[in-house]
Amino acid sequence: SSDSLTSTPPPYPLPPKPRPISVLPEDLKTPDNHVERDARLIRLTGIHPFNVEPPLSALYEEGFLTSRNLHYVRNHGPVPRVEDSEVLDWEFTVEGLVDRPVSMKLRHLIMDYKQVTYPITLVCAGNRRKEQNVVRKTKGFSWGAAGVSTALWTGVALADLLARAGPKRGARYVLLEGADNLPKGSYETSIKLAWAMDPERGVMVAYKMNGELLHPDHGKPLRVVIPGQIGGRSVKWLKRIIVSSTPSENWYHIYDNRVLPTMITPEESANLAETWRDERYAIYDLNTNSAVFCPAHNETVSLMASEEEEEVYKFKGYAYAGGGKRVSRMEVTLDQGRTWMLANITYPEDQYRLAPETETLYGGQLDMSRESCLCWCFWDIGIPLSRLENAKDVLFRAMDEAMMVQPRDMYWSVLGMMNNPWFRLVIHREAGSLRFEHPTQPALMAGGWMERVKKAGGNLANGFWGEKVWGEVEAAKP
Amino acid sequence: SSDSLTSTPPPYPLPPKPRPISVLPEDLKTPDNHVERDARLIRLTGIHPFNVEPPLSALYEEGFLTSRNLHYVRNHGPVPRVEDSEVLDWEFTVEGLVDRPVSMKLRHLIMDYKQVTYPITLVCAGNRRKEQNVVRKTKGFSWGAAGVSTALWTGVALADLLARAGPKRGARYVLLEGADNLPKGSYETSIKLAWAMDPERGVMVAYKMNGELLHPDHGKPLRVVIPGQIGGRSVKWLKRIIVSSTPSENWYHIYDNRVLPTMITPEESANLAETWRDERYAIYDLNTNSAVFCPAHNETVSLMASEEEEEVYKFKGYAYAGGGKRVSRMEVTLDQGRTWMLANITYPEDQYRLAPETETLYGGQLDMSRESCLCWCFWDIGIPLSRLENAKDVLFRAMDEAMMVQPRDMYWSVLGMMNNPWFRLVIHREAGSLRFEHPTQPALMAGGWMERVKKAGGNLANGFWGEKVWGEVEAAKP
Repeated sequence: SSDSLTSTPPPYPLPPKPRPISVLPEDLKTPDNHVERDARLIRLTGIHPFNVEPPLSALYEEGFLTSRNLHYVRNHGPVPRVEDSEVLDWEFTVEGLVDRPVSMKLRHLIMDYKQVTYPITLVCAGNRRKEQNVVRKTKGFSWGAAGVSTALWTGVALADLLARAGPKRGARYVLLEGADNLPKGSYETSIKLAWAMDPERGVMVAYKMNGELLHPDHGKPLRVVIPGQIGGRSVKWLKRIIVSSTPSENWYHIYDNRVLPTMITPEESANLAETWRDERYAIYDLNTNSAVFCPAHNETVSLMASEEEEEVYKFKGYAYAGGGKRVSRMEVTLDQGRTWMLANITYPEDQYRLAPETETLYGGQLDMSRESCLCWCFWDIGIPLSRLENAKDVLFRAMDEAMMVQPRDMYWSVLGMMNNPWFRLVIHREAGSLRFEHPTQPALMAGGWMERVKKAGGNLANGFWGEKVWGEVEAAKP
Repeated sequence: SSDSLTSTPPPYPLPPKPRPISVLPEDLKTPDNHVERDARLIRLTGIHPFNVEPPLSALYEEGFLTSRNLHYVRNHGPVPRVEDSEVLDWEFTVEGLVDRPVSMKLRHLIMDYKQVTYPITLVCAGNRRKEQNVVRKTKGFSWGAAGVSTALWTGVALADLLARAGPKRGARYVLLEGADNLPKGSYETSIKLAWAMDPERGVMVAYKMNGELLHPDHGKPLRVVIPGQIGGRSVKWLKRIIVSSTPSENWYHIYDNRVLPTMITPEESANLAETWRDERYAIYDLNTNSAVFCPAHNETVSLMASEEEEEVYKFKGYAYAGGGKRVSRMEVTLDQGRTWMLANITYPEDQYRLAPETETLYGGQLDMSRESCLCWCFWDIGIPLSRLENAKDVLFRAMDEAMMVQPRDMYWSVLGMMNNPWFRLVIHREAGSLRFEHPTQPALMAGGWMERVKKAGGNLANGFWGEKVWGEVEAAKP
């Protein structure tokens, strides 16, 4: 009920205002001593390189959009240093199997192409990997459930760049190379040309995040952003776009971001060059996944009942699916999968569809023209405490619009990627209250029912989360 | 090593030659008394309307392509009668939210547009529904695991027709209406316009199947074929293509081909008009699924060991994924999911990619230009009898390229659609041989471990296929 039209807020979320940041003391002795960061981020691989997720509660509090400060980061090495004054002169190429190879500067990307802005959720393929590492150590480090973030990205459709360069007959892949200087060379990966050209997939070459020039950790000054696919394909510090008839041969493309078949051990994998190169095991589209924001790990809820009304605890969390698919339902069980309840889902992404088609944001047209879903969604469900106090655990699963549901059992693999079994909270009844225990805590942080069960001798792969089963299933006679 | 080039077979599969067929006695008293059919097809809904699947073994024997005779059929009512002499004069429209509405004859579709041919697997959304019906009766009839068939389809890209008509601003859906005359009106459904326009999805308007004019049960003279989506969207006897800003309101679009949340009972569903209309519960892309061809139900294998070599039984079956995705792996367990083996997969679809780009087939260009996967694949795995005789059962699951895996547990729903839990064979050791028991048999045919376990008082929804569990899981103390 404002009396001024100019003060009417837009019908869609805007990013949280990030707190001021500065170079942190622990970064001073690293090659990243020029990068300003938020001290709340949880370091997953020691001090350097910088691989971080925000505290899950902080991610929740920021809402649909994540600030520059708290957006998760996956860096393989030192962050390239690019001054603000150098941004517009950043050079990159579109080359390879094209009719008109281009070497251009960022200023031309801004001047000569249609600028677009839209929200995109990025997810690290390692999100929730800590759970895999507790079952059996993988070759990857321990992400908790906060390797996921959403921002408003501004840039140019990769399809527009490619169309101008003109892919030749036989072109099938787009290789993307960054400027980072790594032990195994530069970081390069590839996606299919058909995906890059598909407007529904929304692949973008971006130079702004939440209306600001990219933060160094997020690819300053230019990166690819690929909605619905694992973050590992969204190459940062972008230098070369190479059209090709074959996928990338880069070490990071072959030996990272794959889900090898579950029976292959880390030891065996060392001798399986052909298996690593099998494109069927490469991850592109995200799988369907979800996690719980509320309650936080070890949060307690009092069982002291009010006399007037039944007390209800409201669970909240996020969910996402890959490849442009929407999460179509979110379900919750108090009896380990025998019966399920339906949670509410909200899709804040759809609020951007309420803006006029002419809307511009951060210098780009707010482009919600596609049918596909590029962002996470939020779910919630209220459950009476009287039911919770009689339950041993509460489990959550998402189903996507192709009717594929998160699996009950973990799919363990050598790299520990794409971990997406039902998200399980154990309920402890303690001194007049309920305490909720998450599966794990990120990095080397202790806590969670998985470590506890494992230490107690439980087999986490027994199909019952390592605990003894209740109910009607009986042990077989020997 | 033929000495004549003209006799060189193509590098890709051609359809099996169908046996001669005639009008069957049981159809004479029905409105379908003009339709010639193969007597081997298994009727799932009595004599009429005609809803059939082939015997699973016959489907297997035909190989990658299914003949006109054995392709599964889902008819909601009488089959429209169209004489061969009327085919070219069949009229249909492209109308609605378009700049240039068209009313055209099939002869113009053939003369004025680019003709294409490619293999497409169609799957009924009810495939494997019998398993759901054994757990709890759904509103759908009992498909076995043979509601899936593959053919070479010839026609025109729906995108080409739509592009010529010119969708207007605001157009988001394509409604497809057939000529069938049903209790609730004509059959109409809709898909998203973005899918229809996407060359990777390969949506076709087809008038030939395996090189012949369409068989009446398959839509003579004209139908839509939508790869990667449930068969229920591939409208037969096509009369109207209507571009729209909203999805179909047709009874068959709203009250068929949906997966309601699992907790909704048939009784409750009667009063949930809003739930039925929730597009999130409508099925479009197929989910990932698989089944076993060999062994057949109740097939036995002798345990008499040869002295020279270890005896191995070779399991074989099919798998598919939806939305153009490929099945990326097929896994098999002898210990109810604790450990898995990897099966071999073959993709006969890829053999068509070996043909020259100029290849024509049945009057259409053999079009394998897309990256997406439109067909089923076959898998096999040899397992030593010595291991099988010590196992209680053998379970199979497929994973797709988005790393989504078939679920361990059934997702029961009111309409019983998209049933895709791990496919389980029970192994019985009997008199020096092993007998393999499938989950069910189609229609009202008796047999299968599910009925047996249920009759014995087992709870099929207990998370262990209704049987007592073995191994390390113990019953909880009360």
